[in-house]
Amino acid sequence: MTSTLPTTKMANAIRALAMDAVQKANSGHPGMPMGMAEIAVALWSNHYSHNPANPKWINRDRFVLSNGHGSMLHYALLHLTGYDLSMDELRNFRQMHSKTPGHPEVDVTPGIETTTGPLGQGITNAVGMALAEKLLAAEFNKPDFNVVDHHTYVFLGDGCLMEGISHEACSLAGTLKLSKLVALYDDNGISIDGHVEGWFTDDTPKRFESYGWNVIRAVDGHDVSAVDAAIKQAKQSDKPTLICCRTVIGKGSPNMAGTHNVHGAALGDKEIAASREAMGWTSAPFDIPADVYTAWDAKLKGSKSQAEWDALLSAYSAKFPQEASELTRRMSGELPGDFDKVVSDYIATCVEKKETIATRKASQNAIQAYAPGLPEFLGGSADLTGSNLTNWKECVAVRGDQAGNHINYGVREFGMSAIMNGIALHGGYIPFGATFLTFSDYSRNALRMAALMKLRSLFVFTHDSIGLGEDGPTHQSVEHVSSLRLIPNLDNWRPCDTVESAVAWEQAVKRQNGPSTLIFSRQNLPFQERSKEQIANIKRGGYVLRDVANAQAILIATGSEIELAVKSADELEKHGVAVRIVSMPSTDVFDRQDDAYKASVLTKGVPRVAIEAGVTSFWYKYVGLEGGVIGIDTFGESAPAGVLFKHFGFTVENVVAAVKKTLA
Amino acid sequence: MTSTLPTTKMANAIRALAMDAVQKANSGHPGMPMGMAEIAVALWSNHYSHNPANPKWINRDRFVLSNGHGSMLHYALLHLTGYDLSMDELRNFRQMHSKTPGHPEVDVTPGIETTTGPLGQGITNAVGMALAEKLLAAEFNKPDFNVVDHHTYVFLGDGCLMEGISHEACSLAGTLKLSKLVALYDDNGISIDGHVEGWFTDDTPKRFESYGWNVIRAVDGHDVSAVDAAIKQAKQSDKPTLICCRTVIGKGSPNMAGTHNVHGAALGDKEIAASREAMGWTSAPFDIPADVYTAWDAKLKGSKSQAEWDALLSAYSAKFPQEASELTRRMSGELPGDFDKVVSDYIATCVEKKETIATRKASQNAIQAYAPGLPEFLGGSADLTGSNLTNWKECVAVRGDQAGNHINYGVREFGMSAIMNGIALHGGYIPFGATFLTFSDYSRNALRMAALMKLRSLFVFTHDSIGLGEDGPTHQSVEHVSSLRLIPNLDNWRPCDTVESAVAWEQAVKRQNGPSTLIFSRQNLPFQERSKEQIANIKRGGYVLRDVANAQAILIATGSEIELAVKSADELEKHGVAVRIVSMPSTDVFDRQDDAYKASVLTKGVPRVAIEAGVTSFWYKYVGLEGGVIGIDTFGESAPAGVLFKHFGFTVENVVAAVKKTLA
Repeated sequence: MTSTLPTTKMANAIRALAMDAVQKANSGHPGMPMGMAEIAVALWSNHYSHNPANPKWINRDRFVLSNGHGSMLHYALLHLTGYDLSMDELRNFRQMHSKTPGHPEVDVTPGIETTTGPLGQGITNAVGMALAEKLLAAEFNKPDFNVVDHHTYVFLGDGCLMEGISHEACSLAGTLKLSKLVALYDDNGISIDGHVEGWFTDDTPKRFESYGWNVIRAVDGHDVSAVDAAIKQAKQSDKPTLICCRTVIGKGSPNMAGTHNVHGAALGDKEIAASREAMGWTSAPFDIPADVYTAWDAKLKGSKSQAEWDALLSAYSAKFPQEASELTRRMSGELPGDFDKVVSDYIATCVEKKETIATRKASQNAIQAYAPGLPEFLGGSADLTGSNLTNWKECVAVRGDQAGNHINYGVREFGMSAIMNGIALHGGYIPFGATFLTFSDYSRNALRMAALMKLRSLFVFTHDSIGLGEDGPTHQSVEHVSSLRLIPNLDNWRPCDTVESAVAWEQAVKRQNGPSTLIFSRQNLPFQERSKEQIANIKRGGYVLRDVANAQAILIATGSEIELAVKSADELEKHGVAVRIVSMPSTDVFDRQDDAYKASVLTKGVPRVAIEAGVTSFWYKYVGLEGGVIGIDTFGESAPAGVLFKHFGFTVENVVAAVKKTLA
Repeated sequence: MTSTLPTTKMANAIRALAMDAVQKANSGHPGMPMGMAEIAVALWSNHYSHNPANPKWINRDRFVLSNGHGSMLHYALLHLTGYDLSMDELRNFRQMHSKTPGHPEVDVTPGIETTTGPLGQGITNAVGMALAEKLLAAEFNKPDFNVVDHHTYVFLGDGCLMEGISHEACSLAGTLKLSKLVALYDDNGISIDGHVEGWFTDDTPKRFESYGWNVIRAVDGHDVSAVDAAIKQAKQSDKPTLICCRTVIGKGSPNMAGTHNVHGAALGDKEIAASREAMGWTSAPFDIPADVYTAWDAKLKGSKSQAEWDALLSAYSAKFPQEASELTRRMSGELPGDFDKVVSDYIATCVEKKETIATRKASQNAIQAYAPGLPEFLGGSADLTGSNLTNWKECVAVRGDQAGNHINYGVREFGMSAIMNGIALHGGYIPFGATFLTFSDYSRNALRMAALMKLRSLFVFTHDSIGLGEDGPTHQSVEHVSSLRLIPNLDNWRPCDTVESAVAWEQAVKRQNGPSTLIFSRQNLPFQERSKEQIANIKRGGYVLRDVANAQAILIATGSEIELAVKSADELEKHGVAVRIVSMPSTDVFDRQDDAYKASVLTKGVPRVAIEAGVTSFWYKYVGLEGGVIGIDTFGESAPAGVLFKHFGFTVENVVAAVKKTLA
């Protein structure tokens, strides 16, 4: 230990702050911080390499609190070690616009690496961070210049281990030999419903050994030196490590420790007083003795660590200037300067070729066009590479013993998505990963977390409707496109051809403040002719694809239904009805445009009919009570795609009738 | 073996049918049926107890194809053993309205026990079936009268084992000692992306041992007698069993076996011819020799099995008439005759008490009122029992060694939901299970599967909005209520008080053709006064809660926002604006009402403003382009609930302004 203060006192400072903050808020979770206090002392005092003055130092160790309800543990650590997190913030725990929300939130609190709370996703983000570190190290490190070289530490509890996503993430972490990932398991035998033996009897060490992890069993989680020794051993392993720490939840509380009552509620003034006495903690609430602050202070050590690394980077820059500048660019999230040109050249090619292909193939072509100039591209698929078409000619598969830029995630949709979030959080890469659109359900909360965290994770979903055909209703998306549109801050793109696909990819890559979904067809879709202005307007989410003088009605469509809109407009013209066609690849983006633009696309008072091979409810927002929607509000069927579109009413005849009805 | 035909020939019949049907459809998955053919021979010839003439025989063994893409295996088995599934149906594989859809679908094909395809859910449904069998046996069996006594068999592959839900389900199955669950693992080393060693290196036997399963390792999956012996051993175990069968995917195809190319596409005429020759299979496509039919025929054996059981049930009925009639009722899904009276008595009590309580508490009160008369109630929670309030006074926790009627599912939301689906499929119980509404994301595809399968699974979701308060945006639902409404055939209820909560539970319990969600508040909500007619109209999903003569506007609200609607209407009255209040606890149910009723609630031409603490997009369907929506289109924040409602604009002031705007 670097300090002479007894580690017990350091740990008790965490306990006191956790009890006091939860009590003041009358809300929160004291049990975990009190139970993991010694583990935190061992990790943060002796191993965790970080710089409180610069929480964004790119070579810092990453620390993830997967059991995020124990947020006061992390806030206490950040405060005590010298981050810009004042005692007033701790006093404002769980209050509006404090830096100490109920669960840790990245970008709200300095030093928080990821937003946690939804169990199992923190450890999965951490797998992504450790993977990003490994790949980035392989890409940039040189002999004697390990400019990318840090650990990823995770705290997790029984809840995370029960969640299915922990299986997906930890299985893959074992396969990929993420040796710099160290997870500390708070094995306290308690979850919210009580003693876990009634519902959770896994032999967890054995389970993790089956994944190829290094498992350190039966460590006394209240013995700082035992935990310290375990972490030392973990850092020597060539596998990811799980350190199983036996702990007592709420340790320090004489009457409530070891019970689920201490998990998620304030202890009460009386029990807090009893705990203080039992611990010998005499300071007032929110008062930390100077010697405790001194013992915890990591500012000096942190600035030294970063200074050493800065020196290393300087030397690296001198010897490898191009790599150094590229590493800096990559970690900043800025795109290469010529990206716009790459895009416009590629779009020109698309316009020239006029290809009728599936948009999933159009997507692959866009990836192929952009990837050579975007070394930060890190693709992947949940075991559907040949169907999702996320790979490109030069991509290299990531393996346990091989760095690369395309990940076979296995059949692990949720794990893939939360790993992508971890990669995006780490920096250095733009992750994209794919599955069939229907299985976005499996990963849905990771999409939400990406949106909440404003991450550049690109979720590719192919086979986007009944157009999937024979695989049937289990695989056919009906509600999914609309349902993804309801997630705040998620931009969803459903392009209709090669050009819209190219723009969708461009916009998703350029977006710095949130994730995007890229939704593609299984089946071929025809190329659409556009003017330069129309092409420029695609990025506005919705635009006039075909206009007529004095339009009597507006057809709004997306993706595969643009073809039907065009055919229907032709037929309506024969009936003497002039209609405008609006292509709306992204309603999310369209909704953010200024009112004048929106009104120029959807002229007020002109009747509207929307067409999309999905549920209808969402579209009334654009067509109103008097408008029409051609959609599908039931599950699909197993049959060839053409048969299905006809069966479910996606016909020129029906569109014509719907338009005429709005004009009646 | 009961037949003298070589088992190879029986297996090859499956291979031929799988090759032929996939070839004819030019779509489908021949690899799995060809690889698991001998395993199917071993199980179906020697162990699987079923009656092709009566696929609904209640004591049949359950058989689940968790790797559902191998549907042709199951269709071949059903056809060969004598189910009502003609060769013409096999010829129509994957065609519109055939009985042979791309993935197995319950209620479409006789003998299919659950709809599979979304990986990992089949094995999880099977855990639910085995659990239902165990609990029902404990409830109804008597010494010498094992009227409930069957096994549940599952086929699964690498895909299912990679999915996180397999962890949740199999972990719990081990804890609950579901000894009559036997899973046969098709260990062929191939998934869609190729040889699995790049992304899936689990020591699966060890993993399952860590769950407390009986694991039988390294069985030759092409040796019928080896598989047969393993199943025999499995049936003796006091734990669930995983039989690991080493197989070759696409076995029988001389040039494609053992590769991922045989997984999901037709082999082609040439390779089929080569396979036929290699197998010595000389029959024409879709032609099965008589001796093969004879060997497979299970009609006689099945009718004998059922006759024996029928005799047992008769004797049981004589000795335990009440139990026998109750078992019959329970398995039929009919409710007890006095349920309506129980409900109306309870609602009368609610009306009398006029309680202001959280609807999650109102939900618990409804459960408490209904449970004593509904022994089929099988409740549970994903480790939030004390928050979700799914338990009731007399409920008994299910444990490994203890039957009961409330399940601590652990932190396993997806597993819980798909287990509930398995319980509902088995029959005998009405399962309900709970988590926080936001974590419905984790289980979303199981909700979809329940809706697709038309199951009576009741999904209870509490803490339904920013009203959850301090836990913050990770836990606060914003998009969820609307997003659940988009799933076809899922009825969603968000009640506003004790009476609506009672009706929501009643309707969910009575619904025979689909699942329901029951969505409740964390915070207290005031009781609303209603006439008898109004109470009767709650079940119509939407109704006039408060009317005025010549309403100038209609306020539509749900759940916790009814209180705001009422206060706003009062304020508007002071401003001389007369508004009607429509309570809309279930838009899904309201949408199914006749047009006259709907028009009587939402009078045409009267401006409308909707209020819901969730995303706004959905509500334009009811308010139109000119109406107003008071909602929240961003993520929430961590703060006390009252602060949040004000911050996000759920104020009388804003509602009044919105109504006035629609009148302007």
